[in-house]
Amino acid sequence: MTKGIKIVTIGGGSSYTPELIEGFIKRYDELPVRELWLVDVEEGKEKLEIVGNLAKRMVKKSGLPINVHLTLDRREALKDADFVTTQFRVGLLDARAKDERIPLKYGVLGQETNGPGGLFKGLRTIPVILDICRDIEELCPEAWLINFTNPAGMVTEAVLRYSNIKKIVGLCNVPIGMEMGIAKLLDVDHSRIRIDFAGLNHMVYGLDVYVDGVSVKDQVIDLLSDPTNSSFVKNVAGLGWEPEFTKALNALTCPYHMYYYKTREMVEKELINYEKGETRAEVVKQLEKELFELYKDPNLDIKPPQLEQRGGAYYSDAAVRLITSIYTDKGDIQPVNTINNGAIASIPADSAVEVSCIITKDGPKPISVGDLPVPVRGLVQTIKSFERVAAEAAVTGDYDKAILALTINPLVASDKLAKQIVDEMLEAHKDYLPQFFKTVQA
Amino acid sequence: MTKGIKIVTIGGGSSYTPELIEGFIKRYDELPVRELWLVDVEEGKEKLEIVGNLAKRMVKKSGLPINVHLTLDRREALKDADFVTTQFRVGLLDARAKDERIPLKYGVLGQETNGPGGLFKGLRTIPVILDICRDIEELCPEAWLINFTNPAGMVTEAVLRYSNIKKIVGLCNVPIGMEMGIAKLLDVDHSRIRIDFAGLNHMVYGLDVYVDGVSVKDQVIDLLSDPTNSSFVKNVAGLGWEPEFTKALNALTCPYHMYYYKTREMVEKELINYEKGETRAEVVKQLEKELFELYKDPNLDIKPPQLEQRGGAYYSDAAVRLITSIYTDKGDIQPVNTINNGAIASIPADSAVEVSCIITKDGPKPISVGDLPVPVRGLVQTIKSFERVAAEAAVTGDYDKAILALTINPLVASDKLAKQIVDEMLEAHKDYLPQFFKTVQA
Amino acid sequence: MTKGIKIVTIGGGSSYTPELIEGFIKRYDELPVRELWLVDVEEGKEKLEIVGNLAKRMVKKSGLPINVHLTLDRREALKDADFVTTQFRVGLLDARAKDERIPLKYGVLGQETNGPGGLFKGLRTIPVILDICRDIEELCPEAWLINFTNPAGMVTEAVLRYSNIKKIVGLCNVPIGMEMGIAKLLDVDHSRIRIDFAGLNHMVYGLDVYVDGVSVKDQVIDLLSDPTNSSFVKNVAGLGWEPEFTKALNALTCPYHMYYYKTREMVEKELINYEKGETRAEVVKQLEKELFELYKDPNLDIKPPQLEQRGGAYYSDAAVRLITSIYTDKGDIQPVNTINNGAIASIPADSAVEVSCIITKDGPKPISVGDLPVPVRGLVQTIKSFERVAAEAAVTGDYDKAILALTINPLVASDKLAKQIVDEMLEAHKDYLPQFFKTVQA
Amino acid sequence: MTKGIKIVTIGGGSSYTPELIEGFIKRYDELPVRELWLVDVEEGKEKLEIVGNLAKRMVKKSGLPINVHLTLDRREALKDADFVTTQFRVGLLDARAKDERIPLKYGVLGQETNGPGGLFKGLRTIPVILDICRDIEELCPEAWLINFTNPAGMVTEAVLRYSNIKKIVGLCNVPIGMEMGIAKLLDVDHSRIRIDFAGLNHMVYGLDVYVDGVSVKDQVIDLLSDPTNSSFVKNVAGLGWEPEFTKALNALTCPYHMYYYKTREMVEKELINYEKGETRAEVVKQLEKELFELYKDPNLDIKPPQLEQRGGAYYSDAAVRLITSIYTDKGDIQPVNTINNGAIASIPADSAVEVSCIITKDGPKPISVGDLPVPVRGLVQTIKSFERVAAEAAVTGDYDKAILALTINPLVASDKLAKQIVDEMLEAHKDYLPQFFKTVQA
Repeated sequence: MTKGIKIVTIGGGSSYTPELIEGFIKRYDELPVRELWLVDVEEGKEKLEIVGNLAKRMVKKSGLPINVHLTLDRREALKDADFVTTQFRVGLLDARAKDERIPLKYGVLGQETNGPGGLFKGLRTIPVILDICRDIEELCPEAWLINFTNPAGMVTEAVLRYSNIKKIVGLCNVPIGMEMGIAKLLDVDHSRIRIDFAGLNHMVYGLDVYVDGVSVKDQVIDLLSDPTNSSFVKNVAGLGWEPEFTKALNALTCPYHMYYYKTREMVEKELINYEKGETRAEVVKQLEKELFELYKDPNLDIKPPQLEQRGGAYYSDAAVRLITSIYTDKGDIQPVNTINNGAIASIPADSAVEVSCIITKDGPKPISVGDLPVPVRGLVQTIKSFERVAAEAAVTGDYDKAILALTINPLVASDKLAKQIVDEMLEAHKDYLPQFFKTVQA
Repeated sequence: MTKGIKIVTIGGGSSYTPELIEGFIKRYDELPVRELWLVDVEEGKEKLEIVGNLAKRMVKKSGLPINVHLTLDRREALKDADFVTTQFRVGLLDARAKDERIPLKYGVLGQETNGPGGLFKGLRTIPVILDICRDIEELCPEAWLINFTNPAGMVTEAVLRYSNIKKIVGLCNVPIGMEMGIAKLLDVDHSRIRIDFAGLNHMVYGLDVYVDGVSVKDQVIDLLSDPTNSSFVKNVAGLGWEPEFTKALNALTCPYHMYYYKTREMVEKELINYEKGETRAEVVKQLEKELFELYKDPNLDIKPPQLEQRGGAYYSDAAVRLITSIYTDKGDIQPVNTINNGAIASIPADSAVEVSCIITKDGPKPISVGDLPVPVRGLVQTIKSFERVAAEAAVTGDYDKAILALTINPLVASDKLAKQIVDEMLEAHKDYLPQFFKTVQA
Repeated sequence: MTKGIKIVTIGGGSSYTPELIEGFIKRYDELPVRELWLVDVEEGKEKLEIVGNLAKRMVKKSGLPINVHLTLDRREALKDADFVTTQFRVGLLDARAKDERIPLKYGVLGQETNGPGGLFKGLRTIPVILDICRDIEELCPEAWLINFTNPAGMVTEAVLRYSNIKKIVGLCNVPIGMEMGIAKLLDVDHSRIRIDFAGLNHMVYGLDVYVDGVSVKDQVIDLLSDPTNSSFVKNVAGLGWEPEFTKALNALTCPYHMYYYKTREMVEKELINYEKGETRAEVVKQLEKELFELYKDPNLDIKPPQLEQRGGAYYSDAAVRLITSIYTDKGDIQPVNTINNGAIASIPADSAVEVSCIITKDGPKPISVGDLPVPVRGLVQTIKSFERVAAEAAVTGDYDKAILALTINPLVASDKLAKQIVDEMLEAHKDYLPQFFKTVQA
Repeated sequence: MTKGIKIVTIGGGSSYTPELIEGFIKRYDELPVRELWLVDVEEGKEKLEIVGNLAKRMVKKSGLPINVHLTLDRREALKDADFVTTQFRVGLLDARAKDERIPLKYGVLGQETNGPGGLFKGLRTIPVILDICRDIEELCPEAWLINFTNPAGMVTEAVLRYSNIKKIVGLCNVPIGMEMGIAKLLDVDHSRIRIDFAGLNHMVYGLDVYVDGVSVKDQVIDLLSDPTNSSFVKNVAGLGWEPEFTKALNALTCPYHMYYYKTREMVEKELINYEKGETRAEVVKQLEKELFELYKDPNLDIKPPQLEQRGGAYYSDAAVRLITSIYTDKGDIQPVNTINNGAIASIPADSAVEVSCIITKDGPKPISVGDLPVPVRGLVQTIKSFERVAAEAAVTGDYDKAILALTINPLVASDKLAKQIVDEMLEAHKDYLPQFFKTVQA
């Protein structure tokens, strides 16, 4: 690495890229990036140029010797990379809109990670990721693959199980968001908070929470279950938990738990958005449009503050933090998606989990959890079953397995609904699912 | 046991008792019962006398030296018993009707084992079973407790975890019914069929199926997933599985899986019954009434054939078969609920599972399963989480835990609904749930 | 199998074969063997003919329609076989003599299964077994491989790990011998005894023991630890256990435990035999010579009673019993070497263990043990480590791994001794260990 | 803790104490100790005063506001302690001499941790530690117990299993010594080395080794197995490993592995020392005598350099480093003895292991290992079996269990030798083993 660090970002035309650039600039002292390659596909070319030029202006302003390259040639970019980050979206936001809207037609939540939407996002994404893995194996076998593409848990599982790449970390902004939320609840600085995370991506629990290393879990559970408290936390959907549930669960939930512990309420809420044409994809699409208008401004040379409203806050910061800790062998604790290796007893040792890890140059090392608390063990196992069947369907293009994946998903829980949804979604996403439409050779 | 075998049946006034008697008479050569004590509580006294007298007539007809005793004094009965069977129903069928009807008001299935109905049946039953366990410990510590009282899995879990009784077997007629169904499908005699069972009570799967020891699983899966087949099996609800689901699952389901893999369809179906006042409890209540009318006939000295329509077919036969195998150290294979002891890898070694076992005088010994197939691991773990939280709520009377149990149950999946249902059901079953209504002492 | 059962015995020229024939004749009603192929290699041709002709005379006397074939062509024999039994000895008894004598020169027990002798027997045997497995895969993929060749545990491990054959059972006469011994100690018929076996081949423990299904373990432990008892059991070496050890261990040992729990005494004893030229191989060689003289007698048409002194009693009977139970799907309990599948918690699920199993047409199904008792867990794990490193050395021909295998073996426990013994034994067995003497190609 | 930190050192009269004092002085900025209580028993009073006065002079010289208290009243000292360190030796070095010499009479290594010496040190120490635990529970329930008393693994196991104290960490200087050794071998600063440790106390392996986070394991294994290398590492006994063993093991050994992988050579070596009256205890006794002469010098106010020859180097430094990391919630990686919690798959989750942990204010959190490499799994399990049987013998005073513990110990491996050694050692240590000499009451 004497030549300096080479980073390749696949899906470089994403609206998130300015945050990533800001992160690299901010941490340059620790993480001296020399080359940053932003890669995208033909249909993302225009966005790549807009955001890539902003990236170049930001770097120029910083005065740092970082070379930003824009390319549609993934293989050229990957050569000798040190880190590869993936943040692409097969089918763009239009596909996400279908992921969300089609299930809702059947009264089922789309949920772009662990629901039907997540299944189809996985079916579209996993073959591409495995293709990237083959390129990495050939062109930069020592590189770390840092995946933020959702469904991050299913993708990490698929890479561990169906590729030769072992140096993969799946990254999510949910845990960092939970820490921020607790910091705010307790009115202490984020840096003083640590949570013991365990579970799966978008299905992660906080098993304990500390301020300056001292457990404040009892206090936090009390605060979270006190409806009279003015800081009574509303989650992503603006719905609070029943106090009894919070107390008896005795663990911190993540925002995505709303889909599984408030299924009916969430369906009702989403159906309203559906009617209004305001599902998340549609909202984000509008936001993105506005962002790219901003990015075009040749005088803009900072990350525009409007980006923070995009959602996915902390994502890029988390990514740069992770890369820095790997590069510097920092040994700090970060929650990431990695191979379980016995950290959670009831999940297979070779499966992906999202768990607090020590981050070293040799990658993340999970801290042993023992087993998950009894009440949460079931749902975590269920989502792991779903992720594995879904990953298998993605790799094989097996129609029956896709239906099975949805049937065992708690948001669907019906073989008949599963089949209807799979049929309609397969058709809708046909162009991105060649593995399901192989022509039989004579 | 030189004195001959003493069997005590708690809930002896049940309409099932004639089947049990028939079983004891039929297997007398192998299982020489000398004393059969039918025990019931004050409110079941009338039924005990009706069915007890029929039992006496049946024994008399057989000419066997079995002494049938009827009593309301459980402790007198238990003294030096060899086997204790439990088939009682706290709150009788009226309670079951509430278990089924109240959840349906909220659009949720009652499901008397692994749903809200099962939770409340467990809350009523577990304290009584633990009380019986204390009596057994004192009065007949060498006895085997054969429990058929539902929810049999939760009850077995509770006994293993909260009593000193280790000699408990939970028994269910579902596996035997699955074997019968497969025998019919293949048109072979039941005795030639063997299924490798694994899972939990009412959540059990057939992982392989054999005719004369040769696996016919592929053939069975094909038959079960062929909708054009005239023998295409309808399950309890008259609804068939989607062929793709059956093929991809590649395991035999039990009838109760309809609740979890066809949740919406089952809710719709049950809501119709609810409107008509024809939930299962209501249907059974009518059947029981007719049965007891028959039982009263002083000329009746056989099990009336109408009993078979009662549902719960094979239950008593399974029970007598199990008792016989324990008594004679037969070493045959039977599916029962017992301590896991490592048979299923992802379930704790000290939890109850329903699994194929060798039946010896030393009790059932589970055959190692390894781990459950990936697609079913999640739902089984979920129901185990539910059973454990429910059992803890039953023992402690902890209101929050009761809400947690329902929230994590896939039929409810909402903390808000859980709370509403718990509140209404606690009130409805108040008389049988003293642990939730302890008065605080001054 | 309409054509009748075809059995192939590899190493058919073994002195044990008459016992096998006797077994097939005795159980013909249950196990109608039509073809029995005795296979041997060129250097065993003479013995094959002698024992093969005796076999033919025995069959003739029985009047049964069993066809006995003698051949040196293994592949011809294997075609469409139903069962393949392996009882060959690479290098014959001369090799065993070296296995025993060379280690003793260094003051170390040879021990032909789990010691240095076992390592070298494994190194010679495993490549041949894997070769047979490849033939089976091609010529009779549905056949069951019943291996009695020692070291049976290491061989079973190697087949499970390094071949595609899954239908293998390793068989040993030690457990049946323990049952016989206990039957004698208690003066009850063997058929009334059952032992819960768990461990590894020649490292198996009896965790409980029953008469007619009732545990008599306490009584047996008392008897075994009472030195004043006239039936105080001497084991293979004529040495009794210290009573305190027996009581505290609270499990039945097998004769081979003497090597590990009386190491020094056994070394001293064997060194005396070594000096006298009376190691086991030498004794057996003489016995075999005498047996083959008997076998040559053209009037002999029964198994000569002298065979029982050969050692290995019950071996062939155990084999025929096992084959019969598989063929008839009997479902009885037999201790065999098979894949663990979770039966013993601290041993990997995919490793071979020796454990009580239900024997079905689908093969042996281990009964769950949970975990081994604390005091024995270590030694069992140690021998499993040894077996696995040894099997790897056998497959790869890796010299360093052979030294590692012996260093971690408790009978050696020295890297220096390990190297010396490996060096001398590699040279002595050179002709049978081609994998260690590969010429490097230019 | 606003009052400042209170530390209690039991066995304060140890010759190691000056190193501890030096550590507290050196790290005062991070770890502001206000009160240090040195506790000893009546027979150690003189040494306590000598070393205690040196401690006071050292503190005085430092100018820090640390109050050093000397006392024989353990309970007074423990009141409200924050950290309790234990470094006592029941029976002093005379007992250790017996631990070493008596087994050698029988040709068996004494080995003061995992051999017969360790058994008897455990039998003497565990009841005292459990007594201290009861005091801690009452007098300072929030305190961390930092145990350096050997056998540290067995003691930690006993505390976890037989006391209510969960806040215990067992500490050893072996891992830090391995890091130092590797640093020297590679000629890099110790701070740049990190080893992934896993195993048990004095039975710990280095599974990987890093310089600045980059694995250098292959290089280290090559260096360690190259006998021509001038830095070819000799271990504690001055004996090198066979290169083939080192390569095939592919893990770093600790010095104590000599006893198990070079047993015969070590016995021979120790027997020479035995003859010369130069066993380790005897050597240390002489060293201690000289040290205490130095300590008496009223002008001495630093740790005398001669202490470093005492052995046990880095012990106190490791202790102060650990206490500091707990106190400051540092989150650095240190190898300690703690509850396994799933970090090593084949060891029970509730047993003590020695493994790399993150050190937080909430204690050490083990990093998941998955499972140990196949070749080392056996020996680690064996020593765990030994530790558990030994701990049970210590708590119950069960003579049979003491014999069992030694029989299953690989250094003894004979029930007869075990009994002889136990008998002679019980008698020799009679005064310190009241649990084995309980008078039966009339």
